[in-house]
Amino acid sequence: MIRVAIIGAGGYTGVESIEILLRHPQARLTYLTALPEECGHVADIYGQLRGRCDMQIEPLDLDKLAKLADVALCCLPHKVSMSFVPKLLATGVKVIDFSADYRIKDLALYEKYYEPHTDKENLAHAVYGLPELFRAKIKGATLVANPGCYPTGASLALAPLLRNNLIKTAGIVVSSITGVSGGGKKPSAGFHFPYMNENIYPYGVGVHRHMPEIEQVASEVAGKPVELLFQPHVGPFDRGILSSVYCDPLTTVSPDALKKLYQDFYKGEPFVQILSAPPAVKNVAKSNYVHIFPTFAKGKVIVFSAIDNLIKGASGQAIQNMNIIFGIEETLGLK
Amino acid sequence: MIRVAIIGAGGYTGVESIEILLRHPQARLTYLTALPEECGHVADIYGQLRGRCDMQIEPLDLDKLAKLADVALCCLPHKVSMSFVPKLLATGVKVIDFSADYRIKDLALYEKYYEPHTDKENLAHAVYGLPELFRAKIKGATLVANPGCYPTGASLALAPLLRNNLIKTAGIVVSSITGVSGGGKKPSAGFHFPYMNENIYPYGVGVHRHMPEIEQVASEVAGKPVELLFQPHVGPFDRGILSSVYCDPLTTVSPDALKKLYQDFYKGEPFVQILSAPPAVKNVAKSNYVHIFPTFAKGKVIVFSAIDNLIKGASGQAIQNMNIIFGIEETLGLK
Amino acid sequence: MIRVAIIGAGGYTGVESIEILLRHPQARLTYLTALPEECGHVADIYGQLRGRCDMQIEPLDLDKLAKLADVALCCLPHKVSMSFVPKLLATGVKVIDFSADYRIKDLALYEKYYEPHTDKENLAHAVYGLPELFRAKIKGATLVANPGCYPTGASLALAPLLRNNLIKTAGIVVSSITGVSGGGKKPSAGFHFPYMNENIYPYGVGVHRHMPEIEQVASEVAGKPVELLFQPHVGPFDRGILSSVYCDPLTTVSPDALKKLYQDFYKGEPFVQILSAPPAVKNVAKSNYVHIFPTFAKGKVIVFSAIDNLIKGASGQAIQNMNIIFGIEETLGLK
Amino acid sequence: MIRVAIIGAGGYTGVESIEILLRHPQARLTYLTALPEECGHVADIYGQLRGRCDMQIEPLDLDKLAKLADVALCCLPHKVSMSFVPKLLATGVKVIDFSADYRIKDLALYEKYYEPHTDKENLAHAVYGLPELFRAKIKGATLVANPGCYPTGASLALAPLLRNNLIKTAGIVVSSITGVSGGGKKPSAGFHFPYMNENIYPYGVGVHRHMPEIEQVASEVAGKPVELLFQPHVGPFDRGILSSVYCDPLTTVSPDALKKLYQDFYKGEPFVQILSAPPAVKNVAKSNYVHIFPTFAKGKVIVFSAIDNLIKGASGQAIQNMNIIFGIEETLGLK
Repeated sequence: MIRVAIIGAGGYTGVESIEILLRHPQARLTYLTALPEECGHVADIYGQLRGRCDMQIEPLDLDKLAKLADVALCCLPHKVSMSFVPKLLATGVKVIDFSADYRIKDLALYEKYYEPHTDKENLAHAVYGLPELFRAKIKGATLVANPGCYPTGASLALAPLLRNNLIKTAGIVVSSITGVSGGGKKPSAGFHFPYMNENIYPYGVGVHRHMPEIEQVASEVAGKPVELLFQPHVGPFDRGILSSVYCDPLTTVSPDALKKLYQDFYKGEPFVQILSAPPAVKNVAKSNYVHIFPTFAKGKVIVFSAIDNLIKGASGQAIQNMNIIFGIEETLGLK
Repeated sequence: MIRVAIIGAGGYTGVESIEILLRHPQARLTYLTALPEECGHVADIYGQLRGRCDMQIEPLDLDKLAKLADVALCCLPHKVSMSFVPKLLATGVKVIDFSADYRIKDLALYEKYYEPHTDKENLAHAVYGLPELFRAKIKGATLVANPGCYPTGASLALAPLLRNNLIKTAGIVVSSITGVSGGGKKPSAGFHFPYMNENIYPYGVGVHRHMPEIEQVASEVAGKPVELLFQPHVGPFDRGILSSVYCDPLTTVSPDALKKLYQDFYKGEPFVQILSAPPAVKNVAKSNYVHIFPTFAKGKVIVFSAIDNLIKGASGQAIQNMNIIFGIEETLGLK
Repeated sequence: MIRVAIIGAGGYTGVESIEILLRHPQARLTYLTALPEECGHVADIYGQLRGRCDMQIEPLDLDKLAKLADVALCCLPHKVSMSFVPKLLATGVKVIDFSADYRIKDLALYEKYYEPHTDKENLAHAVYGLPELFRAKIKGATLVANPGCYPTGASLALAPLLRNNLIKTAGIVVSSITGVSGGGKKPSAGFHFPYMNENIYPYGVGVHRHMPEIEQVASEVAGKPVELLFQPHVGPFDRGILSSVYCDPLTTVSPDALKKLYQDFYKGEPFVQILSAPPAVKNVAKSNYVHIFPTFAKGKVIVFSAIDNLIKGASGQAIQNMNIIFGIEETLGLK
Repeated sequence: MIRVAIIGAGGYTGVESIEILLRHPQARLTYLTALPEECGHVADIYGQLRGRCDMQIEPLDLDKLAKLADVALCCLPHKVSMSFVPKLLATGVKVIDFSADYRIKDLALYEKYYEPHTDKENLAHAVYGLPELFRAKIKGATLVANPGCYPTGASLALAPLLRNNLIKTAGIVVSSITGVSGGGKKPSAGFHFPYMNENIYPYGVGVHRHMPEIEQVASEVAGKPVELLFQPHVGPFDRGILSSVYCDPLTTVSPDALKKLYQDFYKGEPFVQILSAPPAVKNVAKSNYVHIFPTFAKGKVIVFSAIDNLIKGASGQAIQNMNIIFGIEETLGLK
């Protein structure tokens, strides 16, 4: 039985991780921590857990963590995360980190989009936790950087094309729409119901922090630099990311051949489904699946992918990574 | 041309009032004020006004108000309102106040539900601005207390029954559901999109401040004390209040007779529609209409009413009051 | 391992039952049937099952059913159901019926609200499957009538009051709001997105078929006839029923005493949670829990209950009943 | 006073046109027609018109039309439209046609995407009614083809770039998201609330009929053939289209220069607003405005446009065209 701690259990990815772990047959929640003002009984903080989880969320105590947990899901925001992760690792637990702090290997790039990095040592050995592309490295890793929500959907949509050298590695457009839970639990004017409801809008034009992350994964898969434009939008629904990816093919390719290519690439993957028609985010809500539909039209290769931003885009993928790290069946708790 | 100032133009009732006045053929917006941090060009604060209204929202200057306006719509919260209204009145303008401060005539009751009243003088002569019931008093009034959103829908549903002595004056239940704009523009956890969406919940059980207001109107209409339970709920939509009113009849009464009674009671009213089937809030969205359906079933008289909480429940009703005060056609700007 | 067939797997309660059974450690889906036009691979009919369930939905073959299943979840509409249930029972399987056909014991009442009953024999021994109130009878039953969605929430809200003789048995108002999935999978004008969205409306005034069902349960619990008005509304969300129940107490009773009473009444119940504040439907979404908040205000006892209409109000409750019938742990598949 | 008939008043564009015309100071609704099964009092068909419009919708009578109207808004679907328009024109009224039948000048292209054209004569002189680009031709036209909803938003976003030869005329991607009203009033599985709510999905990949229409306008503006991929999506909101347009610039161009270019291009346009930040569809809901934000990032020119699909994308634009045809102030009824 894997003993799991959640650091930063007061946010959406924290509660999603709790929900998954309550169903996990070989893992057990042993320790929940958050900022002092977010502490208390989980059911008082998350009404949906009433009767299902009888635990307290407490301020972090590293000694307690060391005694109680084999692995820590670190659900802290970037910058905060890299100040805690070294301490977490020092207790001997494995760490799956939800922030961006250990995702971007190019330090200058990280520092351009985020802030000065304060834990280069651990950055060096952190593994990017996208199992479908990097499973071998995740096995036995000590520190896994759990991918961003947008990069998960975008990377899985692009990987078969790039690995097979089918598209130009410049000029790619990733146009994505996220549900509002992607913006986190903190109330704000942009996500106030009377503003967000009946609305949809783009944001982060040309500057979103997930752009370099997608480019990094895409470049690694392609074996050469990939340049793309990532454009996020937010729409009036809770969960899900739909990514519409537009690429220029190097040669004409039929929709059927594309489908075959994707099926082969993701053969045996437990959470990837290649569709014959466009995906709908509702069909992946509350699941760890990614639905992908690749096709060709008007001279473009178009790939659509749909995930649940909080599950495959965060907590579900973290548990998938945990299962891989500990060498247990990868789908436990997730099907 | 009536010159109109809006005090507190930075909130939802402010912008709704602006929208109506932009269409009003005999009134003109001349002055918009708000808290310093809410000031600026209206189009920067309300994107939907871009190109439609080229005015600045400024901090309140009483001298300027006196010069520029014949009437002030005072869209301030309670307590703040009664600290400003005496000053507004002192400039010679007429005031239509959106807060609760001048609605409740029983001082002890006001102070039980709100706080100590600091402007008893003006409270004494303020007129409760529900035109369908108190039109005569509104004509020529200097200070009109614009009714609360819930009390508007509930009072218009109950009035014909109470005036005609058809129901018991105790045990009435007013069960209402409001859209989220009723909670105002300020972001909060309860109205954060990922919480409010796909949700509905009761609140203010037994203590909502609109309960005594509804009782006051009902008692005045009945000519004797009326006691009722008002229970509000909030649901995942922007606009509208649906009130379901359950009463005990003094005698059995047919649905047809009830319909006739309501049609007679509201004969000639420009904004009241008596339906033959239950109302839907969507049919009154963005309008000053109230849709009412009275019926009888299982020993109860049941009345449903639907309004737009921001229009008939606030800004539309204020303009209706303004039109009455100034003796112009009551429906101007509202149809 | 219990072998489960679903008859009528093409609707919302069918797919919800499938989802629950996929997680059930001691039950296995063995046979799915539907109308010919709804047949095919489950993943083609329900995109959310892609990769999770590799079964065909087929036209019903009674011999096949007899061989493959120990129990049939009969998710057919009323009238259709009572034409199939005798045949299902004749194969020797146990039946949990989702329709109204075996819920109402008073034949005349059933026929008043529905149509002529064609299976009186089985009606006589059918057990009303609300475990919290009738668990003993469900054990070992051959035919369980799975309760209606509204009756589940309303009955559980009322039972402690009626059993303890705390309220008048006339004049009770049950004012409920359902999510749109309650209306089923078939598209219609009333549930077309552009009409239903941003809308809320009452329906079925005085004539809803769940009214006599709630009265039957209430009367049985009270041990004397109970008369009530049930008023449903539909609001713009997928799942959940919030019931606001207004009663006249026989004596004044404190909110704290009410809470204690409910806690005692539902002591040990695995799916009932007594809250200290109003429930929110989002907190029971996708769960088999019922959240109840009883209180006292303005001379009324008020009880709010929240359930997921498709889970505790249909498929979850059916599995709970199945677990009880077969004598296995009642919460299996449901927590 | 312009006398206006609406042919096909039973759908969403019909009722939107009615709403606008009720506010129009120099036009008067004189005749409403629809299919026999959609006929009756407007308030019975559109609850929101109760008390606001006291007219009957009747089966079409051409003699009556000829007597009662100066102009007919023809809100029929394609194919049906071209069978009626010749008869409407024969009565001497001017026609503004909402269907696609008179929009596409290249007959082969029309017939590829639609069906055989049966009114080539009128197609030849029909004017494409996008005022910001073709105002001069609309003045005095007899038959105006009112543009499609998507083409309106996309064309206005692209025009300044193409007119000024700033982008490549191949490889353009128009990725758009519409609200559900764009799918019309007829209930269907894809727009059933429990499916559409909490959902977003692409459709019409590579084959949407608005693609050749956008290309036609773009080519005319550019003065040379333009090829683009148009990809529509539908999201869970009533109204609005957000178009995100991705182009390859011929030279690098600064965001400021782009803004200036757009401001100059649309100088004096009463309904076009050039923003300095991304638009939100909620800010154009129920208005005839288009909000455009052009910018440059990652080697791409990106233009976002937002319109209300039923107003600027249909009925509002039709009234704007009507105002132009009859030489009255273009914004009447629309501000």
